[in-house]
Amino acid sequence: MISLNEPYLSGKEKIFVNDTLKKNWISNFGKYNKRFETSLSKLTKSKNVIAVSSGTAALHLALRAMGVKQHSEVIVPSLTFVASVNVIKYLNAYPVFMDVKEDHNLDIKKTIEFLNKKTTFKNNHTFNKKSKRKITAIIITHMWGNALDFFDLKKICKKKNIRVIEDAAEALGTFYKKGNFKDKHVGTIGDIGCLSFNGNKIITTGSGGAILTGDKTVAKKIIYLSEQAKNDGIKYIHNEVGYNYRLSNINSAFGLGQMSKINIYLKRKKFNYQYYTNYIDKIPGLQILKPSNISRSNHWMNVLKIDSKLIKKKPMFFHKKLLDHGIQTRLVWKPNHLQNMYKNDQKFKITISNRIYDSCLCIPSSVNLNIKKLKKICNIIEKIANG
Amino acid sequence: MISLNEPYLSGKEKIFVNDTLKKNWISNFGKYNKRFETSLSKLTKSKNVIAVSSGTAALHLALRAMGVKQHSEVIVPSLTFVASVNVIKYLNAYPVFMDVKEDHNLDIKKTIEFLNKKTTFKNNHTFNKKSKRKITAIIITHMWGNALDFFDLKKICKKKNIRVIEDAAEALGTFYKKGNFKDKHVGTIGDIGCLSFNGNKIITTGSGGAILTGDKTVAKKIIYLSEQAKNDGIKYIHNEVGYNYRLSNINSAFGLGQMSKINIYLKRKKFNYQYYTNYIDKIPGLQILKPSNISRSNHWMNVLKIDSKLIKKKPMFFHKKLLDHGIQTRLVWKPNHLQNMYKNDQKFKITISNRIYDSCLCIPSSVNLNIKKLKKICNIIEKIANG
Repeated sequence: MISLNEPYLSGKEKIFVNDTLKKNWISNFGKYNKRFETSLSKLTKSKNVIAVSSGTAALHLALRAMGVKQHSEVIVPSLTFVASVNVIKYLNAYPVFMDVKEDHNLDIKKTIEFLNKKTTFKNNHTFNKKSKRKITAIIITHMWGNALDFFDLKKICKKKNIRVIEDAAEALGTFYKKGNFKDKHVGTIGDIGCLSFNGNKIITTGSGGAILTGDKTVAKKIIYLSEQAKNDGIKYIHNEVGYNYRLSNINSAFGLGQMSKINIYLKRKKFNYQYYTNYIDKIPGLQILKPSNISRSNHWMNVLKIDSKLIKKKPMFFHKKLLDHGIQTRLVWKPNHLQNMYKNDQKFKITISNRIYDSCLCIPSSVNLNIKKLKKICNIIEKIANG
Repeated sequence: MISLNEPYLSGKEKIFVNDTLKKNWISNFGKYNKRFETSLSKLTKSKNVIAVSSGTAALHLALRAMGVKQHSEVIVPSLTFVASVNVIKYLNAYPVFMDVKEDHNLDIKKTIEFLNKKTTFKNNHTFNKKSKRKITAIIITHMWGNALDFFDLKKICKKKNIRVIEDAAEALGTFYKKGNFKDKHVGTIGDIGCLSFNGNKIITTGSGGAILTGDKTVAKKIIYLSEQAKNDGIKYIHNEVGYNYRLSNINSAFGLGQMSKINIYLKRKKFNYQYYTNYIDKIPGLQILKPSNISRSNHWMNVLKIDSKLIKKKPMFFHKKLLDHGIQTRLVWKPNHLQNMYKNDQKFKITISNRIYDSCLCIPSSVNLNIKKLKKICNIIEKIANG
């Protein structure tokens, strides 16, 4: 079986994890939490990094820290993993769904059009004309590890007092290679950024995530909320509703081991992408999704685009045939405005997201792929397309 | 430094954790999740056990599965860890606080009095007369690992269509030794039960928890909700708001190692309790809290009771003096009806909880305590009392 995306061990995980066992540093004792956060800080150049128990937890805390609460509205691309929308509902707030562009990243033009035409600004806040609710934040996603250029959006959000939350769950190791954010790591440009270390991500901690922020006060607030909002841990005084979201020392030790080879993982991911592109792009009607030219991508996930004019087979057909050969694939995220629990929420001019869901397939992208496996996958994809 | 409650390793954790590393079973791959759940099932005799990322997550999912939602009300003892109340707020529901008895467990009589006098029953549901809201569930806590006898409450809750959620976070290894629930493990009697494996608990997984249920449909629902409510994992179809709450395989492997010595841990915990009781109960004005006579307790935490008539020193005075000798202690949980964010919620005849908070202290209870350490702690407590 060739998995979609499986963990790859550096060898250091064993040393660090066994060190936590030896020293009885299991839960919130010990120094690996700090060391893991420091290693992330070094890579991303984010001044503050807080490791938490999942990418979902990171997003949930980010929304809380950015002031999202009951009856707030949060703008979010429809084509993203459902967790980015669920966290809005956790706080009893409302999503407003936006479309993406052909590169699967948020359509900035449409989003700015929405802000200009469909909202009003009063008392230093932006309100949705239709619902009358306050728009507190926008979540932007760096899809599949490909950086979104949101310079114009950032400017307008600042003017309209809307917080920008970067969902960089898929994008650890992704930098901008040109433009206004040149050499910056994704997740460090908006008001706050989120990472995920789920088992399928470029590095993993089992389950885990992190928050990136340049603001020390925000960092303190995040730590406070993630540790059950203890104002006094001896007297058990709590002044807010908090969560049990801090990453354990044992998982942090594992993550530190993973981080020791992040540069090798990034090289291998790039190799996968280049191999796929060279092979697949020559097949009529098929193409590998390209990051925009401002993104030095981590190439977390390779996505196959099927041109329905040339190939009369749906992504699920490819999926089933590939599975027969022991190759795991998945559709792209289902647009959230089409999900059962979100179909009554507001959306704005969504067309492309629906088409992408109907014409794309995520293909194996693990660090441990080799030329033999990549060739096998490409061969079979070619046969399905032509067969 | 003598800690309040620190993890104690069996030696097996290393073997199992290294096995997950060797086999690349990190996140949701591998068999340790199932093995850990089976070991819990064997001890508790619960037909279904679902391991999740924290005790808080377990309670959150339990409430969801029991139908708690926006505007529901949930009855909860005021004297419990704040997480048991926070989970009610996560769902935008409302707590109604009850008092506890001298043994720190829920006052069943007062609770039944509340149900009889302050609620009405119509259309097969129980409504709070004051707020008009539906009372969906009650959380009962087995405080400090001591089993609560809730036979009468269970009967009346069944009649009134109120779900009983057992918060057994502190009580893994606690059984009833007589009465209607004889030989049953706590958490297996109500409609659903919750455990915690936080770093301070009798066994730990770093951070972790579990849900116990006899109902297969409920178990399926819990798993569904804990894995982002995926109806189709290939097409990314989700029909409800879900969470990222499953326990990772690596943490489960650790937990399985811990479970291999649970009986030894229970014996040592009992020894601590007996040592403290023999020593402390002879000091005028001091006493160790006793479990009720129906509980075969896990003696998770030993609590010092200070009689203010005989000793004019507050728990915080003891805390500070003990800390000077490198001995860690904490107050008992602060009653939640006194916490800033819950002071406006409904409460019913609470008197004893407040007094307990003002007269009790949690003292070191780790598995790794020995006679020398126990003697030192007792000696110093005696000197503070007499000094």
